[in-house]
Amino acid sequence: MSIYKFEVKTKQEGFTDITYKINSYIEQSNVKEGICVIYTPHTTAAITINENADPDVVDDLLFALDKIYPQMPEFKHLEGNSPAHLKSSCIGVSETVIIENSKLLLGTWQGIYLCEFDGPRTRKVYLKIIK
Amino acid sequence: MSIYKFEVKTKQEGFTDITYKINSYIEQSNVKEGICVIYTPHTTAAITINENADPDVVDDLLFALDKIYPQMPEFKHLEGNSPAHLKSSCIGVSETVIIENSKLLLGTWQGIYLCEFDGPRTRKVYLKIIK
Amino acid sequence: MSIYKFEVKTKQEGFTDITYKINSYIEQSNVKEGICVIYTPHTTAAITINENADPDVVDDLLFALDKIYPQMPEFKHLEGNSPAHLKSSCIGVSETVIIENSKLLLGTWQGIYLCEFDGPRTRKVYLKIIK
Repeated sequence: MSIYKFEVKTKQEGFTDITYKINSYIEQSNVKEGICVIYTPHTTAAITINENADPDVVDDLLFALDKIYPQMPEFKHLEGNSPAHLKSSCIGVSETVIIENSKLLLGTWQGIYLCEFDGPRTRKVYLKIIK
Repeated sequence: MSIYKFEVKTKQEGFTDITYKINSYIEQSNVKEGICVIYTPHTTAAITINENADPDVVDDLLFALDKIYPQMPEFKHLEGNSPAHLKSSCIGVSETVIIENSKLLLGTWQGIYLCEFDGPRTRKVYLKIIK
Repeated sequence: MSIYKFEVKTKQEGFTDITYKINSYIEQSNVKEGICVIYTPHTTAAITINENADPDVVDDLLFALDKIYPQMPEFKHLEGNSPAHLKSSCIGVSETVIIENSKLLLGTWQGIYLCEFDGPRTRKVYLKIIK
């Protein structure tokens, strides 16, 4: 099975739903049952799974993450984006999801998001399917 | 290998140790060496690995998570459970553990927990074993 | 494929870059394409992926984690290391990374770190490669 790679154009901060995109690659792979590793090769972005119905949830998450992981005067990293690095490590740069019947076995309200914490950028997402 | 599915009845908030249950499915699968993906398809629950000896650790984790990810007046999601969504994304809805000698290769003090942040509910857990 | 195991000697707190070590095991395995699960069997340590260029980023992460997950007077766990348990669950004890061309498919600025939150200790790291 190949490694699938695609890009996502992001705003300054935000979550982009990539569920549909991932499912289309799984369909292409002809794998009926297995796992899919979703990975973003960046240090100020992340992958998370959360509610896909009410967009207020994503807004609340972004708001809260800014409050909980704020800019701090003691930070030394000159680029000034240490909060984004911190969010990346706390949320994590990958998720592993089970595949059943040729698609992601998600819950009713779950969507998979690329999280941008230091954009706007063009971000990469890698997928590896294992059966 | 099948996908294994089971349910956990939860209280309002709490961690349920599911290590024994997972090991019994691994035994059933006859897989001696591989990996096991443990996944919960919910947006206000999570899976984590932490101390299984002193129950005070779990109490301290729950207490601290409430302090660190509190209810905030700015939250817009009308269901009122945004802190639970936040905890779910920060802890994460899955773990991947190595299998050796037909069981989870955990540390001496590690147990696998289903974390409930918005119960009581009946929560699902999915397992996929890959060798 | 075997499970690879190695140890890391840590200081009181800190991130140890284990990327090179993992890549040398992947080379040894002769696996060209697949995934590698990196797992630490401890409840006060973690595995994370973040910037490998400017060491100030790791310092900022350690500083911020101490501020965000502090010692709290309400903690009951007598060993006194509940903040380390909390950091372990929030960062997570494993990462899964894609293998391409016989090595980790990381981003330009990504390194894999063993995070010590309650050292000094000798910590174990386990690797399982799946193709």
